[in-house]
Amino acid sequence: MKIIMDMYGGDNAPLAPLSGAALAVKELGIEIVAVGNADEMKALCEEKNISTEGFEFIDAPLAMPVCAEPTEALKSYKESSLTVGMQALADGLGDAYVGAGSTGALVVAATFIAKRIKGIKRGALASVIPSFGGNDYMLLDLGANSECRPEMLSQFGLLGSIYMSSVLKIENPRVALINIGAEESKGNDLQKEAHALMKNAPYNFIGNVEARDLPFGACDVAVADGWTGNIVLKTTEGIGLAFAKQIKQMLTKNIFTKLGALSMTGSIAELKSSMDYKKRGGAPLLGIAKPVIKAHGSSDAEAFKNACLQAKLFTEADVIGKVTKALAEIKEAE
Amino acid sequence: MKIIMDMYGGDNAPLAPLSGAALAVKELGIEIVAVGNADEMKALCEEKNISTEGFEFIDAPLAMPVCAEPTEALKSYKESSLTVGMQALADGLGDAYVGAGSTGALVVAATFIAKRIKGIKRGALASVIPSFGGNDYMLLDLGANSECRPEMLSQFGLLGSIYMSSVLKIENPRVALINIGAEESKGNDLQKEAHALMKNAPYNFIGNVEARDLPFGACDVAVADGWTGNIVLKTTEGIGLAFAKQIKQMLTKNIFTKLGALSMTGSIAELKSSMDYKKRGGAPLLGIAKPVIKAHGSSDAEAFKNACLQAKLFTEADVIGKVTKALAEIKEAE
Repeated sequence: MKIIMDMYGGDNAPLAPLSGAALAVKELGIEIVAVGNADEMKALCEEKNISTEGFEFIDAPLAMPVCAEPTEALKSYKESSLTVGMQALADGLGDAYVGAGSTGALVVAATFIAKRIKGIKRGALASVIPSFGGNDYMLLDLGANSECRPEMLSQFGLLGSIYMSSVLKIENPRVALINIGAEESKGNDLQKEAHALMKNAPYNFIGNVEARDLPFGACDVAVADGWTGNIVLKTTEGIGLAFAKQIKQMLTKNIFTKLGALSMTGSIAELKSSMDYKKRGGAPLLGIAKPVIKAHGSSDAEAFKNACLQAKLFTEADVIGKVTKALAEIKEAE
Repeated sequence: MKIIMDMYGGDNAPLAPLSGAALAVKELGIEIVAVGNADEMKALCEEKNISTEGFEFIDAPLAMPVCAEPTEALKSYKESSLTVGMQALADGLGDAYVGAGSTGALVVAATFIAKRIKGIKRGALASVIPSFGGNDYMLLDLGANSECRPEMLSQFGLLGSIYMSSVLKIENPRVALINIGAEESKGNDLQKEAHALMKNAPYNFIGNVEARDLPFGACDVAVADGWTGNIVLKTTEGIGLAFAKQIKQMLTKNIFTKLGALSMTGSIAELKSSMDYKKRGGAPLLGIAKPVIKAHGSSDAEAFKNACLQAKLFTEADVIGKVTKALAEIKEAE
């Protein structure tokens, strides 16, 4: 399997993506198509002693700026590693794409260059979120579409359900709609209409879920418009970080608590690890006709390696083939 | 000071509100106007040995059902304790109102019976949320208006700013708009237009805040439409509960962690207390012409007492007078 990587996306580019790619070749048995300034990448790998075994290079002289307006950026930065990498994906020069570039530009490039699966209205950014009390769950959309129509939410349910069943092997995933109450009548028009569509969708829709119940395993797939999903994700991250800080302070308060902390090193490591997005790789952009993984902007080498692992699992599970098949069945039934 | 209390709202009514009211009379030096089934209340107080010193009773034979559609409920339940209590507030039979009844019905009753402050477009439910890293912050709207116009958000900033400066004595509170990015151009049309209005509003607007930064003291007042505010609140509650559970499990894992836990009893109590909404009282419904506090549905006696304390502080700080004055100044400047 060949993974195309944008080596000039993210805060630690190009060193972290190149190092992560080398780890991925070694540990995951994949090949890498490294997109970016080829001379610079090769020189850096030599200087830093990063193995380029299993690497191909595609030259793209520019890096896409983070703050550019997405549609404009795509037009102005045709030679950027993000755009050239996505074109390579569309052209079949690799099986999947991993990049930590600007989310907006990545979504637009994926949509217009790699294209959506036929019948899918919008791509959705998704992430598997730790749920302490029960199983982990997939949250989508995380912000690819900050305004949504009801049909889009219903399709996100299908995308999430197929991902969770085929990649995470969850049997008949429970799909829920994030809402401000359990009753069908709750929410704005968007939620009410989406609820009605989801009830008749070909997946295991279990109704509304309140954000309060998400960390307790209330569902396997939590569907929201990109605005709401982003708010849930960011709030979760913020409170998670704040609690981790609080626990640390608590444990180092005085000599007694420090002694107590010594006996809990293993448990604390477990807790920290359950919140560590670096171990979880990136966010799949579901609904695109080829596997695309958005890596976190602050990814280090390990995070990039795990994003490659996610791209590998996504591709091997044939999520896109299964979505295509499900859409055909829906169309046939209509 | 006289506080009007709906004794038939919340999961533990009428025992918990009556007990809380008795505590409030004793500890806060206030008087109570107890609204509900008068005979039943008196009999229960006698049976349970709850002091009714400082109590007046207003008879309202019905309890408002929780699930009723708010506007309908208000018409059909004119004799409910919620409605009769709100009318007593409008008629000046008390200085403030505390109730744990259905949020929707409470907001509608407050809006149409106690009325809004002149010039205020919508009332907003607000709550002061613990912020571990820094100062606590006020979050509003929590769901009184699940869809908002930009002017409403701008007014919420004014309401929150005046509350935080006069009740919590925060000097020149930093008001921020919850958004999915720091840049002015972020968000949907609602956020973009609200941002522009808030920049020119007569309070200390510091721009957008991401939900991720809220627990670290990024602002003193976080403004959102009721949908978004509710999602932030519920996510915060959920993750808080999940972490508390996780810490407990961590500390009781084996004999060593249990010994460690013994030495941290104080710190754990501190952490738990910082998350305990019961200590924080209820949610003020800001923008109404009289002080109204929505107590949590699951409030116990202590929580009701603290809601009375909050009503007392809200009233004493003359939040409503200050809002009225600020609105007059805005109008004059136009």
